[in-house]
Amino acid sequence: MSRSRSGSALVVGMMSGTSADGIDVALVRIASRGTNRARSAQIENFATAPYPATLRDSILRVAEGERVTAGEISALNFRIGEEFARAALGALRRWRVRPKRVSAIGSHGQTIFHQGYAQGSRFSAPSTLQIGEPAVIAARTGITTIGDFRSADIAAGGQGAPLVPIVDFWLYGNPRVGRVALNIGGIANLTVLPADCSLRDVIAFDTGPGNMVIDALVRRATNGIQKFDRNARIATRGQMIPALLVRLLRDEYFLMPPPKTTGRERYGEAYVKNLLALPEARRASDSDLIRTATLLTALSIVDAMNRWVRPKAKISEMIVSGGGARNPLLMAQLAAALGDIRVIDSAELGVPSDAKEAFAFALLAWETMHRRPSNVPRATGARRPAILGKICYAPPGKI
Amino acid sequence: MSRSRSGSALVVGMMSGTSADGIDVALVRIASRGTNRARSAQIENFATAPYPATLRDSILRVAEGERVTAGEISALNFRIGEEFARAALGALRRWRVRPKRVSAIGSHGQTIFHQGYAQGSRFSAPSTLQIGEPAVIAARTGITTIGDFRSADIAAGGQGAPLVPIVDFWLYGNPRVGRVALNIGGIANLTVLPADCSLRDVIAFDTGPGNMVIDALVRRATNGIQKFDRNARIATRGQMIPALLVRLLRDEYFLMPPPKTTGRERYGEAYVKNLLALPEARRASDSDLIRTATLLTALSIVDAMNRWVRPKAKISEMIVSGGGARNPLLMAQLAAALGDIRVIDSAELGVPSDAKEAFAFALLAWETMHRRPSNVPRATGARRPAILGKICYAPPGKI
Repeated sequence: MSRSRSGSALVVGMMSGTSADGIDVALVRIASRGTNRARSAQIENFATAPYPATLRDSILRVAEGERVTAGEISALNFRIGEEFARAALGALRRWRVRPKRVSAIGSHGQTIFHQGYAQGSRFSAPSTLQIGEPAVIAARTGITTIGDFRSADIAAGGQGAPLVPIVDFWLYGNPRVGRVALNIGGIANLTVLPADCSLRDVIAFDTGPGNMVIDALVRRATNGIQKFDRNARIATRGQMIPALLVRLLRDEYFLMPPPKTTGRERYGEAYVKNLLALPEARRASDSDLIRTATLLTALSIVDAMNRWVRPKAKISEMIVSGGGARNPLLMAQLAAALGDIRVIDSAELGVPSDAKEAFAFALLAWETMHRRPSNVPRATGARRPAILGKICYAPPGKI
Repeated sequence: MSRSRSGSALVVGMMSGTSADGIDVALVRIASRGTNRARSAQIENFATAPYPATLRDSILRVAEGERVTAGEISALNFRIGEEFARAALGALRRWRVRPKRVSAIGSHGQTIFHQGYAQGSRFSAPSTLQIGEPAVIAARTGITTIGDFRSADIAAGGQGAPLVPIVDFWLYGNPRVGRVALNIGGIANLTVLPADCSLRDVIAFDTGPGNMVIDALVRRATNGIQKFDRNARIATRGQMIPALLVRLLRDEYFLMPPPKTTGRERYGEAYVKNLLALPEARRASDSDLIRTATLLTALSIVDAMNRWVRPKAKISEMIVSGGGARNPLLMAQLAAALGDIRVIDSAELGVPSDAKEAFAFALLAWETMHRRPSNVPRATGARRPAILGKICYAPPGKI
């Protein structure tokens, strides 16, 4: 492991999402001061390398359940490993960072199957399959590579996801201040970081809709011309509809205890269609509906805080990231309803949201290199902490 | 890593072969004296845990190229991981060894695809796919598990096989004496261990037929009643046929430089059928043919020694294992033709041949834990040494 500058190391994190658009590469500087577990990491660079179109097609077909031979999966695993290696080497070359200066690569790989919970079918047990052979990445780059982070959490009884809460833990965990990191994307999720917490104490879960319902109503109101309510201009023209809000807040998801996750299957087009058909919504204006949906997001977050977070941990600050942090009405509603919790826009503090996952896998690799657990049991549902990933050492000596 | 007795550690090696009969479990004691790389390992126990029949069927179907979904491969990977964990825990319980006394597990896993060399098809690049999730083995046993040893050698340009030469290196490598370890199974292979060699200096390759041709002729001569020429009783009644022997020794395989491997596809039934159809073989008695085949094995080994080994290394001893070591005529022929090289029966020195692979994966795991390469480039064809396998750390603390 090479280290440049005293006490800091460079680690590369790599990720390709389920849409298989390409490989995200993040260069992360991790400072490890002294012997104790000081946490400091910052992103130095970020790039995305698209997959060749034919490879992307192969990935998507396999991920969608097309039947293939073991030989085809094997070949795809090695082929994607070569792509990840090329992406890493290409990015490092552009950034003028010699590979030997990089201490480790954390590669999420490409998910071609993930089932975090047991199902009633024949192949019923939870399992996950990430491909993109890390031994190939290690051989081509000469950098020790850690891959396949989800299996160990599943083996520990977890769902293998989410693994990203470690980023909030590193960025915002504080010895004296209890914090919540809130990300408002399509879905809103929060990571609870009690003062002086360990990963074992961290809670993370999806609170419910983030921008998803608001955005759908905006698209509908503007015939698709606007994708979101910029600066809450539409919502601020409307009035909240109390009966509708009360009805929407009576949502069984909000009552489920964490860990829990949700998505488009619950708050997507069907949800909005049902919402519009409610008697309470029928004669409302678009701006009234959008204002009500904005308050639904804010109050469902506040509800989650009051129900699941505040009884367990003293929280003084909420750090908000994601598109929702750009919505001034939503931010004001949150601040008003949370009372003594300071609501802060992550702005420069955080990591750009498109780089967050690649950043996370650099941190996870670092933890594993140091033989430390990095799953968040109260986020994934794992029965215990687990050291995630598989270490493939770089070849000895020169490559 | 726990160690019992001063300077020695217990490591478990596990293997399931391509026939998927079951999981071999070897308990190996490794002595690591001082700081330098002292090599001493012995097998303490060995067991085999059969697969459940339905699981074996699934494995064989997938390995034979049946088309399945990524989800089925993923489930099978986790399921086989559970079986390997069960096999390890069951064996340790019977042997009264507490898992916490075991420093590491080396698990070969179950091969469902292996292609060590490039082919002309669409999925043409070499790749390999071993399943039996090591993260599951680590989670269930609480023992750090290293799995998937073949990928790193393939990533280094090798064929990913054979990996077993490390056993000969550990057992027979000697600072002062140059040795050859010869195994005469169906095929004969040898591992060349120059005095004071490192793994990088080791050469290993198949010399050609071992017992395969002899046994086929014996079965034919006895209508299948005898499977092999016990104590060379049949061969010693016959006479060698010089013209036939000369013809058989003019075999292009013997002229190919190592690394090289061969098998039943070259020296199986078709070879014997062709042999019997040769004019030189036509009026020969069964015992003449079997004597000639025995000398073919002996002289093809001697030819390999003279052609590929002796020009490069001074060899004083040949240690012979496998069924062929029980053939006194073959051993005598070898000794006579090799002149000043002492031919020694491995007898008690070695590892029982059914335990050799599981034993090997314990040694490979140990090397990887210590970040040392363990492939034999001149056996696999790799361009360079590689640290084999992927390390999955046991969960921290108790399980």
